[in-house]
Amino acid sequence: MTRILGIDPGLRNLGWGIIDMTGSRLTHVANGVCQSLPGDLADRLLSLHAQLTAIVRQYAPDAAAVEQTFVNKDGAGTLKLGQARGIAMLVPAQAGLKVGEYSPNTVKKTVVGVGHAAKVQVLHMVQMQLPGAVIAGPDAADALAIAICHAHHGPTGGLAAAVERARA
Amino acid sequence: MTRILGIDPGLRNLGWGIIDMTGSRLTHVANGVCQSLPGDLADRLLSLHAQLTAIVRQYAPDAAAVEQTFVNKDGAGTLKLGQARGIAMLVPAQAGLKVGEYSPNTVKKTVVGVGHAAKVQVLHMVQMQLPGAVIAGPDAADALAIAICHAHHGPTGGLAAAVERARA
Repeated sequence: MTRILGIDPGLRNLGWGIIDMTGSRLTHVANGVCQSLPGDLADRLLSLHAQLTAIVRQYAPDAAAVEQTFVNKDGAGTLKLGQARGIAMLVPAQAGLKVGEYSPNTVKKTVVGVGHAAKVQVLHMVQMQLPGAVIAGPDAADALAIAICHAHHGPTGGLAAAVERARA
Repeated sequence: MTRILGIDPGLRNLGWGIIDMTGSRLTHVANGVCQSLPGDLADRLLSLHAQLTAIVRQYAPDAAAVEQTFVNKDGAGTLKLGQARGIAMLVPAQAGLKVGEYSPNTVKKTVVGVGHAAKVQVLHMVQMQLPGAVIAGPDAADALAIAICHAHHGPTGGLAAAVERARA
């Protein structure tokens, strides 16, 4: 069994989702959103770091993956996202985990089948693949999608290899 | 006496400088550059976090300031810088310090007298204001300039207030 943490970084809303991969089977463990209220930037980053560290301690994932942030035309927005993403990459690394990175397109292609899927499609497909999961919102759904993507491409050879092994 | 840590964030070269402010007098304590070699992003951020945390533990500053990153036209560069800056803001916040933020122009105006000074002028003026300091390079000079800027504008009312108090 491999437990995978997916993170959708953001300064205000940082989505997280945890799944277990047992052979080729995926099951939902937990998901949520770490929030930081507007205010002092250092305090916000500290709060995100503390919340995410608590989640890693509670659920003890074996692997992690973070979305490769969309670089948009708004430099200030990119910088904010970058700062939150720095924390999102740091926390699993501090726990000794390898951190995978996937572009939004790769995540969507893996989970939905097309690279330019709408958020509602991602939510729907995540719900389909993790029946029974109560999903905390679109950022948490994106984080679960990243975890599912890592399960397919991840460090243990991914789901495709697991399916091959199961068939052999 | 107030000990101030200045940080010039960067993913490859993160400059740091520490000064003591005693009344209106500034003295150099230490400076250097934390480096992360190209490779896995999570590992680089982890390395910068560990190096900067060791510096904060060793020198125990009372206050910190980080340069407000220049948002350039290169989105990927801004994102990289943002990630490093997230770590630069987090480490002093984890030590319970308030973290000041200053734009490059404010730093230059304070240290050199003009907002668009060249790097070599900053280095020269930092050297003038901290006689005897051996400066590790331009990133470390920028970090010391940020610390000097914070001494002038910082949380204790800054140098101007200290001069006023000394005169009273």
